[in-house]
Amino acid sequence: MKIVKIKTESIAHLSYLIISNNEAAVIDPRRDAEIYVDEAREQGAEIKYIFETHRNEDYVTGSREVKRHTDATIYHGEGLNFNFGEFVKDGQSFELGDLKLKILSTPGHTPESISIALYPEEEKKGAVGVFTGDTLFVNDVGRTDFFKDEMEKYAGLLYDSIHEKILPLGKQTVLYPAHGAGSVCGGGIADREVSTLGFEMDNNPMLQISRDEFIKKKVNETHQMPPYFHKMEEVNLSGNDEPFMNYKHLELFGAQSFESKMKSAQVVDIRDAEAFLGCAMKESLALPKDMIGAYAGYFLDYDKDILLVGDNLDHCKDANNELRRLGYDNVLGLLKGGMTHWETSAKPIEQIQLVSVNEIEDLSKDSETILVDVRKPGEWEGGIIEGARTLFLGDLEDNLSEFDKNKKIVTYCGSGKRATIAASLFKKHGFENVACFMGSMKAYNVKNS
Amino acid sequence: MKIVKIKTESIAHLSYLIISNNEAAVIDPRRDAEIYVDEAREQGAEIKYIFETHRNEDYVTGSREVKRHTDATIYHGEGLNFNFGEFVKDGQSFELGDLKLKILSTPGHTPESISIALYPEEEKKGAVGVFTGDTLFVNDVGRTDFFKDEMEKYAGLLYDSIHEKILPLGKQTVLYPAHGAGSVCGGGIADREVSTLGFEMDNNPMLQISRDEFIKKKVNETHQMPPYFHKMEEVNLSGNDEPFMNYKHLELFGAQSFESKMKSAQVVDIRDAEAFLGCAMKESLALPKDMIGAYAGYFLDYDKDILLVGDNLDHCKDANNELRRLGYDNVLGLLKGGMTHWETSAKPIEQIQLVSVNEIEDLSKDSETILVDVRKPGEWEGGIIEGARTLFLGDLEDNLSEFDKNKKIVTYCGSGKRATIAASLFKKHGFENVACFMGSMKAYNVKNS
Amino acid sequence: MKIVKIKTESIAHLSYLIISNNEAAVIDPRRDAEIYVDEAREQGAEIKYIFETHRNEDYVTGSREVKRHTDATIYHGEGLNFNFGEFVKDGQSFELGDLKLKILSTPGHTPESISIALYPEEEKKGAVGVFTGDTLFVNDVGRTDFFKDEMEKYAGLLYDSIHEKILPLGKQTVLYPAHGAGSVCGGGIADREVSTLGFEMDNNPMLQISRDEFIKKKVNETHQMPPYFHKMEEVNLSGNDEPFMNYKHLELFGAQSFESKMKSAQVVDIRDAEAFLGCAMKESLALPKDMIGAYAGYFLDYDKDILLVGDNLDHCKDANNELRRLGYDNVLGLLKGGMTHWETSAKPIEQIQLVSVNEIEDLSKDSETILVDVRKPGEWEGGIIEGARTLFLGDLEDNLSEFDKNKKIVTYCGSGKRATIAASLFKKHGFENVACFMGSMKAYNVKNS
Amino acid sequence: MKIVKIKTESIAHLSYLIISNNEAAVIDPRRDAEIYVDEAREQGAEIKYIFETHRNEDYVTGSREVKRHTDATIYHGEGLNFNFGEFVKDGQSFELGDLKLKILSTPGHTPESISIALYPEEEKKGAVGVFTGDTLFVNDVGRTDFFKDEMEKYAGLLYDSIHEKILPLGKQTVLYPAHGAGSVCGGGIADREVSTLGFEMDNNPMLQISRDEFIKKKVNETHQMPPYFHKMEEVNLSGNDEPFMNYKHLELFGAQSFESKMKSAQVVDIRDAEAFLGCAMKESLALPKDMIGAYAGYFLDYDKDILLVGDNLDHCKDANNELRRLGYDNVLGLLKGGMTHWETSAKPIEQIQLVSVNEIEDLSKDSETILVDVRKPGEWEGGIIEGARTLFLGDLEDNLSEFDKNKKIVTYCGSGKRATIAASLFKKHGFENVACFMGSMKAYNVKNS
Repeated sequence: MKIVKIKTESIAHLSYLIISNNEAAVIDPRRDAEIYVDEAREQGAEIKYIFETHRNEDYVTGSREVKRHTDATIYHGEGLNFNFGEFVKDGQSFELGDLKLKILSTPGHTPESISIALYPEEEKKGAVGVFTGDTLFVNDVGRTDFFKDEMEKYAGLLYDSIHEKILPLGKQTVLYPAHGAGSVCGGGIADREVSTLGFEMDNNPMLQISRDEFIKKKVNETHQMPPYFHKMEEVNLSGNDEPFMNYKHLELFGAQSFESKMKSAQVVDIRDAEAFLGCAMKESLALPKDMIGAYAGYFLDYDKDILLVGDNLDHCKDANNELRRLGYDNVLGLLKGGMTHWETSAKPIEQIQLVSVNEIEDLSKDSETILVDVRKPGEWEGGIIEGARTLFLGDLEDNLSEFDKNKKIVTYCGSGKRATIAASLFKKHGFENVACFMGSMKAYNVKNS
Repeated sequence: MKIVKIKTESIAHLSYLIISNNEAAVIDPRRDAEIYVDEAREQGAEIKYIFETHRNEDYVTGSREVKRHTDATIYHGEGLNFNFGEFVKDGQSFELGDLKLKILSTPGHTPESISIALYPEEEKKGAVGVFTGDTLFVNDVGRTDFFKDEMEKYAGLLYDSIHEKILPLGKQTVLYPAHGAGSVCGGGIADREVSTLGFEMDNNPMLQISRDEFIKKKVNETHQMPPYFHKMEEVNLSGNDEPFMNYKHLELFGAQSFESKMKSAQVVDIRDAEAFLGCAMKESLALPKDMIGAYAGYFLDYDKDILLVGDNLDHCKDANNELRRLGYDNVLGLLKGGMTHWETSAKPIEQIQLVSVNEIEDLSKDSETILVDVRKPGEWEGGIIEGARTLFLGDLEDNLSEFDKNKKIVTYCGSGKRATIAASLFKKHGFENVACFMGSMKAYNVKNS
Repeated sequence: MKIVKIKTESIAHLSYLIISNNEAAVIDPRRDAEIYVDEAREQGAEIKYIFETHRNEDYVTGSREVKRHTDATIYHGEGLNFNFGEFVKDGQSFELGDLKLKILSTPGHTPESISIALYPEEEKKGAVGVFTGDTLFVNDVGRTDFFKDEMEKYAGLLYDSIHEKILPLGKQTVLYPAHGAGSVCGGGIADREVSTLGFEMDNNPMLQISRDEFIKKKVNETHQMPPYFHKMEEVNLSGNDEPFMNYKHLELFGAQSFESKMKSAQVVDIRDAEAFLGCAMKESLALPKDMIGAYAGYFLDYDKDILLVGDNLDHCKDANNELRRLGYDNVLGLLKGGMTHWETSAKPIEQIQLVSVNEIEDLSKDSETILVDVRKPGEWEGGIIEGARTLFLGDLEDNLSEFDKNKKIVTYCGSGKRATIAASLFKKHGFENVACFMGSMKAYNVKNS
Repeated sequence: MKIVKIKTESIAHLSYLIISNNEAAVIDPRRDAEIYVDEAREQGAEIKYIFETHRNEDYVTGSREVKRHTDATIYHGEGLNFNFGEFVKDGQSFELGDLKLKILSTPGHTPESISIALYPEEEKKGAVGVFTGDTLFVNDVGRTDFFKDEMEKYAGLLYDSIHEKILPLGKQTVLYPAHGAGSVCGGGIADREVSTLGFEMDNNPMLQISRDEFIKKKVNETHQMPPYFHKMEEVNLSGNDEPFMNYKHLELFGAQSFESKMKSAQVVDIRDAEAFLGCAMKESLALPKDMIGAYAGYFLDYDKDILLVGDNLDHCKDANNELRRLGYDNVLGLLKGGMTHWETSAKPIEQIQLVSVNEIEDLSKDSETILVDVRKPGEWEGGIIEGARTLFLGDLEDNLSEFDKNKKIVTYCGSGKRATIAASLFKKHGFENVACFMGSMKAYNVKNS
């Protein structure tokens, strides 16, 4: 028996391939799903089951994609109206090679959430693992804020699911959740990729409190809700996604044709923050490649072509894959030859001013300068630079009207990356005097400690 | 925090790389050690500690190799006289990024065996994992037969180490042993790559019995003890191994020069069993590449050159790596152009007769035929073909004199692979009428069930 | 300017990608065409033109496949009724970056054959290369035997095309033909991958003779004409090929289901000859992977499923690619676990006897033995073993009735590979006493020299 | 027969592997020489000969490295005092499989330069190729300025070598030179990777003129002579280079230790120009990775440690390889975590101002601004921006004293890359007001055309 964990770093998503005796099951596959099919075949196994622990909202699931290439069946919990796949009931069992997989109905994060217990031998000998989806994480639990009017109800459901269904499997059970640290699906997930129910019972702060306290805490939590979630929910219910694993190419546009395509497109510059500061198109959104998973869903439109500016073809292909995981099938192509080609073609370029930690003190006191802290509310709690305006990056574009275009704008975040995205948004919307504090709060704290 | 498991299939060996916050530790590295150094660097981490849970006897450890490329320190338990590295004491702790690693002295398999508990936070919050070396496996425990005169003592030590040091870490602790199913270091290891102390407490048969029963069982166990173990023990104590990770090439020999080199060398044919049956050199040992880890140590001499016959250069390179893991640095080169080149050069070739499941019944009753079952004693318990002579493959070469060269020899094992090795040994030693039962006991059981 | 040569070893086919200044042209692409599209994109170029020098008969051309992934146009010479692409005229020119490509109408091999001259600067400065398709090779010229009634006419056309169109480009012109040594499209092609028109003028034997001698020689040549050529001609005219570059998987069949699928399928064993001799299914055709290009087209049916027996999944995937290049889209899947699985499942297995060079003399004199030399007519001219029956491998299956099933059949060829294919055909058709002379004529000549 | 061309893009260097019948020869190998050894072995061939067409001055030759891993012999022409290898004479022949290689003594570029003619059959049937080293290129000839006092003599020698030794091989001979377009070893080499002696006779401008004109032209040519050439000449004569192909790692330094190592080291920032502009260390030299081959030799000291700032580990490994090709074995390590880590550690950062094509006109007229054109003399001939100071990038560091630190410095080149290097040099040497014109002359010409 073998359990292969497949991690998608950009959205801190964890999926699993379980193999026993030439049979395989996939849990919560992502959209670029060759990895499951190929791995199973390499091991001489055929994928028999595809389980979705819940209707995911942060990425397009790969269940249909796996199914396109295998004879597997897709399974969901009951409670939502999926247009594809089969429904499973609490307690239902599946044979997989020498193993037994048993469904636990664990609503709370969503109404149809399930967990899956893994028994290597007979059930009475105990579970060795449990796949908890977004119900229980390492050091945290799933969010329960998707149904705004029923947050208490769902928080209570989650508490009960954990305490009545999952924890009774026993301390010896290894925990296999659907997300790791950094996911928007849970703010307190620990950066530790290993745990057991026993370790969580003793240490997970959300398991140390009463049902009432639990509900209270959950109801008061705030979580990001990027607008693309609605699109993902829709796609993952209806199953209307394009096939993914075909040989498909991005087009290469010269500076001239890129410029003409730009008029009706969204330009996304996926280079590193420093390169964007140094030289970029005014109209482009800075979105360094490793920020796509977390922030593309706030800024990009599904109905407008996307054009990429990157280091090279492979860089853009990777970005395209990241975008397609979020359902963006509308990338048209990329700037051939990158920024060098743009520059030498005499096309318009701009720079964003760099602010270093030594200058920030003075700037924060300057009445002609507005400091903007674009981190998340939870991060502000650790302290902000005096005088800074706090405004979460995801909310920035809707609130630009409140800033004075005659003042100097200095953005910051934790390290400077999100600050660069923010600076690009200001530029794009006509602010002329924009600067970015590289190093941001981390540098600030180092200097002031 | 991240734990990367590196598995060496050929000897079912498990080693680990633990990374936290730019610092890394390696546990029981193998000799081809780029994998640890490269992986750590890719993650931006430097290897700080190398732990050997015990003096390994089934492969050359890679501790010195890792050390050659890093600033790490090698650590052993106390009780054996290592010529390199530092000694650790029971209870000693090491900081690794945000983690704490704590040494448990767990003698039994060897006198200096240690286990290493992994605490992600404070110690009082409990361990999340334990690296048990050859002390505790999934579904089995380590062997205690290395000190023939003190087997009872070591069996008792192992029992105490498990019950007093390891199991008290708690049910929630994930188990990270040094071997998986198929290792000669434990006959009953389960083919399940996941477990916890809790699951083992409930299910590992060796943990369900009293100290006395445990000792009795251990003393009565039989294990293979390939002759190369002594060489490994010596190298792993003295540290006298050659550097591994240099760019070094195998020589390519044409049929003519191969033939002349053969006179003073051991010829190892690493092709599949079927190809060996079909056409091979009489003087060559059949040792399909995936059997090297398990059987090379019985047949190959450290002081005589090795020549390879394989499918192609890459095939031979892989075999060379497997052999170097076992300390065989004496591979000289390979037959250029493989068997085709040998055949077309008019060099001597032979065939071994194929026996199928439909013929075996008659052959077993034929007085002019000797059936030889070369499996392990434990396998014979499940039944043999009536009339067969049982003789473990590893013991075959020393007992050839008892076979009548005038009779037909038919070898068999579980599937036919080891039977092919056995058949090649008979041929090499002058038996003319040799056949191999492909499918062997598995086919026999299918047919007779 | 860059010319990338892409060689398909199995059919000794050469195709070319020409890149200049962000524009690319492909000449005679093969069906698995990612290599052209990917390479061009990596170089920042878009494929603009696809040229087919002639309607190929030995593989499915990749023109439609390249077109599916680019905006390129396909071009053919005039004289055949292609269902796709555009026609070009003699003398027509194409700009490609800084280069000029000029069409030369060079009928002879086929009526619409073209060659393409490459001018790096102005035409008057001379050509630097010429793409000659199957018109002119290194040391040979194209075959002219496709129109049986008009062989003289086509031989004359070829002579004129070479002497009036190609050679006038000048001695300095580098030769880029569509085939290298080993192709069925020309028997005398030299194993030298570099030439110029000047070198050929001086050394190519077919350019040293008069028009009359040339025609006479061509008319008297014999060439293999595998039956699949007709299918290729049809597909390459009609353009009715399946898209190739999709993510598509072979199915894995266990022994049980493989056996039941076998009843209505062709089983192809792609393992090495020695492995087939050692142990194989009686019903399977031996076709070592590297023989697929040359011999699959003689033995495999387009309308019957193909099942593969190979070393592993990757081995079978490669074989499937080779087969698809020849238009075989009917591979259903492979035997999971290979022959070991088959053997241990107690399924029927057989061996083919090995004959070595030391036994062949006696066998050739034995009246109960028939030696069969399955090489090509041209090879027989160099001498055969006395008493052998010569019968080209491709013609064997149609002539089995003339062999006596009561006699021992010993097959041979140049090395033993084709002899193994032949032996498998005899076995498959009910001959019981079949042996294969490994080393074959090469060994025979070594021994007798 | 097969000729494999291995191109090292960074220095436009071409080396060759010739294989015939299991024997191989290498011509002008580079220092990272696995590629030759591996390729030969993959083809089943052993390298027998290593030829150096001349004592190279622009890279460390890989002859000793190839020799370390094979039994090959190294050969040079006569006329320089090599400490290793054997000498060959004009007319000397070597058998290589079926081929013949014949040495032509072709002094001119250096006194011991040789060319090597390739005969596939008998010599009287003509050469099919010639390896000309730095004697004859596509569209140009080798430079003859290494012996300042004897430039006329060497120019004459080169003319005679070409006309008396090389061209007589005949028009049909394919040309295999040691450099392609972009090399400092010849300014007019065409960007066309294919030619023949016939095509060059007709089109190479240096072959259309008389001996006197040729000498006059050569004597008046100017070529870059980077200071590292002297080191290369010394190493390539003495043979004192370190082994290359060992597994060796770069160290990873955190911001703190990097900063302390910086004091006695050279910091090289290999990121893209735009990223350097955006945010960099003041003390670092901008040297985008693809500029290392052309410019490292002007700026880097062999006796001082080198520290790298790059995008990631792989990026720095590539740069280290490029540097080692030029003999820089003194790279100590890299900044762990790249610039982000530096920024968040509150270390000093700076920005270089961006100048776009729309601003350059005004700046060129501003008396407080100095425009510096850092291109090569040959490029200035095509026009400069009015008022600009021309100073070749390689000469900049020695002439900084002539610039006024109170003025604004604006650097430009062809595209902006070399301008970024120049800007970094100004910054490093204390100029505060430094800007870089991205797009540079290419953009300027687009705008003004």
